[in-house]
Amino acid sequence: MYPIIVKAIDWVNGRVRWLNTNLLPHQEVYEESDNHEHVARAIEGMEIRGAPAIGVAAALAVAAAVVNASTERVDELRSIALKAIERLSRTRPTAYNLFWALERIKSVVLIQYVDAESFRKAVVEEALKIYREDIETNIRIGEIGEKLINDDDVILTHCNAGALATSAFGTALAVIRVAWYKGKKIRVIATETRPLLQGARLTVWELKKEGIPVTLITDNMVGYVMYKGLVNKVIVGADRILLDGHVINKIGTYTIAIAAKRHGIPFYVAAPTSTIDVKSKLSDVKIEERSVDEVKRVLNKVLITVEDVEALNPAFDITSPDLVTGIVTEKGIVTPPYLENIRKILIS
Amino acid sequence: MYPIIVKAIDWVNGRVRWLNTNLLPHQEVYEESDNHEHVARAIEGMEIRGAPAIGVAAALAVAAAVVNASTERVDELRSIALKAIERLSRTRPTAYNLFWALERIKSVVLIQYVDAESFRKAVVEEALKIYREDIETNIRIGEIGEKLINDDDVILTHCNAGALATSAFGTALAVIRVAWYKGKKIRVIATETRPLLQGARLTVWELKKEGIPVTLITDNMVGYVMYKGLVNKVIVGADRILLDGHVINKIGTYTIAIAAKRHGIPFYVAAPTSTIDVKSKLSDVKIEERSVDEVKRVLNKVLITVEDVEALNPAFDITSPDLVTGIVTEKGIVTPPYLENIRKILIS
Repeated sequence: MYPIIVKAIDWVNGRVRWLNTNLLPHQEVYEESDNHEHVARAIEGMEIRGAPAIGVAAALAVAAAVVNASTERVDELRSIALKAIERLSRTRPTAYNLFWALERIKSVVLIQYVDAESFRKAVVEEALKIYREDIETNIRIGEIGEKLINDDDVILTHCNAGALATSAFGTALAVIRVAWYKGKKIRVIATETRPLLQGARLTVWELKKEGIPVTLITDNMVGYVMYKGLVNKVIVGADRILLDGHVINKIGTYTIAIAAKRHGIPFYVAAPTSTIDVKSKLSDVKIEERSVDEVKRVLNKVLITVEDVEALNPAFDITSPDLVTGIVTEKGIVTPPYLENIRKILIS
Repeated sequence: MYPIIVKAIDWVNGRVRWLNTNLLPHQEVYEESDNHEHVARAIEGMEIRGAPAIGVAAALAVAAAVVNASTERVDELRSIALKAIERLSRTRPTAYNLFWALERIKSVVLIQYVDAESFRKAVVEEALKIYREDIETNIRIGEIGEKLINDDDVILTHCNAGALATSAFGTALAVIRVAWYKGKKIRVIATETRPLLQGARLTVWELKKEGIPVTLITDNMVGYVMYKGLVNKVIVGADRILLDGHVINKIGTYTIAIAAKRHGIPFYVAAPTSTIDVKSKLSDVKIEERSVDEVKRVLNKVLITVEDVEALNPAFDITSPDLVTGIVTEKGIVTPPYLENIRKILIS
């Protein structure tokens, strides 16, 4: 129905295959492994990034570990699976889809099985189901969210909530894609997204691949482009959404949301319901702090400051519900009051 | 009275001497020239940057042109000076101090003189007066602004409004310096300031040189640090201030001001009255658009995106008066209503 321009995550002959997003946009290199430790390190090192992609890759990594284990004893396979789940759950603390996907795999792992074959089959099937659902969910998010987009819209997006952040198709960029496929005349403004430049490296790359017009700005131009009337909608992804509508997403999202509010520009979040954390309170949310070298050096190459300066590197920030116009999920668009309406959509 | 840690601009034996800020923080290289074209290119290429530094350097460049001209005819010297003024005025369109300083030199150039010696003397004296006044003005800004700073303040600043943006001492950083010298326990958060990274390269360098504690963040962390309560004051410089209180400053300033407003954090601008443009309306202000290569490449080295992507590169943005808590000048702190109070301070 829609073209799949790139598969960031895939399952090939019992192995996980992923596009190493760190090498984009200059090199398109795919990695493959049946080793969950290898996948865990790819997630930590951000070869695989984006909340849905992390969840799917982790699920497939457990499946690969089970498929390729050399034992035929169910209890040993279960132990291998649980160890893999434990290891993968320690890769990154903020993206909720990781825990959601591993929880789904774990519930399958804990069932009783008559033999190793049926255990393996069940785990692989659940992982593949998570994988396929992710693609279907993204397409659905695109189709639902597309209704928010009008001809001549200029849509600002942050970081990469695209094909490269999911199994395929994307979340925020799914909305943009479907609008584009339907012939709407739209343009995108992509923030470069320091420190790791996912906007400049990934969003620009995947939009240009499809011919969707995109203009790159630095993160600090957000206020300027809004002031100048160069943007009329914002759509971003999410790493975790709380029941009360707090949105945890890539560092910089909150600042964009504040600026959008001042200019009366709608601020939308696009994410699958698997990003919604129904358990945590705001105070429970752990914001990952990454190495400050990511700030002090650009792409591990150019030192841009004094070697021994202190720096901060929170990977995410928290956008308050009052700044969020709507959340586009595969089940529909949720608007305030969030506490009530997120609950409603989850049980719908 | 206060230590002068670095002289970004100087006058040495009839020549302009400047620190090439493009090479900081890794190399501290001084350039010297008596050729106004050479200085003009150093301003365009941002070896010399920051509104007050540009103004002083331009004035000294005209003086150097006059001092080193090989004619003894006043009309020829005048013609040389006017050509230099014209060329220097085309270097950068936004920083008001450039036009203010060249206007001062021009008024001296246009007077009648009995001989070349008195012409040369008058021009050099006016340029040196502008230079010395800049340092005195900055110290005064520091002493006046310092009263706004309390023990344990954490002050966010953007770009570099320091010694490296002026003849010496700085504007926003003068306030921070004087507070520090008076023993106030303060810390600074410096935004890296893409695309040219003046925060990471220059502000960090000069603050560390004096031992003032500084933490580097990316531009998109501004909302986060405010949300987390890690900042309680903002002080920035200005490239042009309109009578109604609009502040034109380095791209990103406006976004910071919006975020500060949301968090109830005072947002101060520190600038000499020579930055105040009493003639222009908002619609007259030209925002310099620089090469998009500055955005697509980091420090002319690493290509961070797809080669042929469209990009924007406005060097400045405009902060609305409702976001500005106060403007610290050498004549006092101006608060709203600006139209009334800026006029008052100018005639005081």
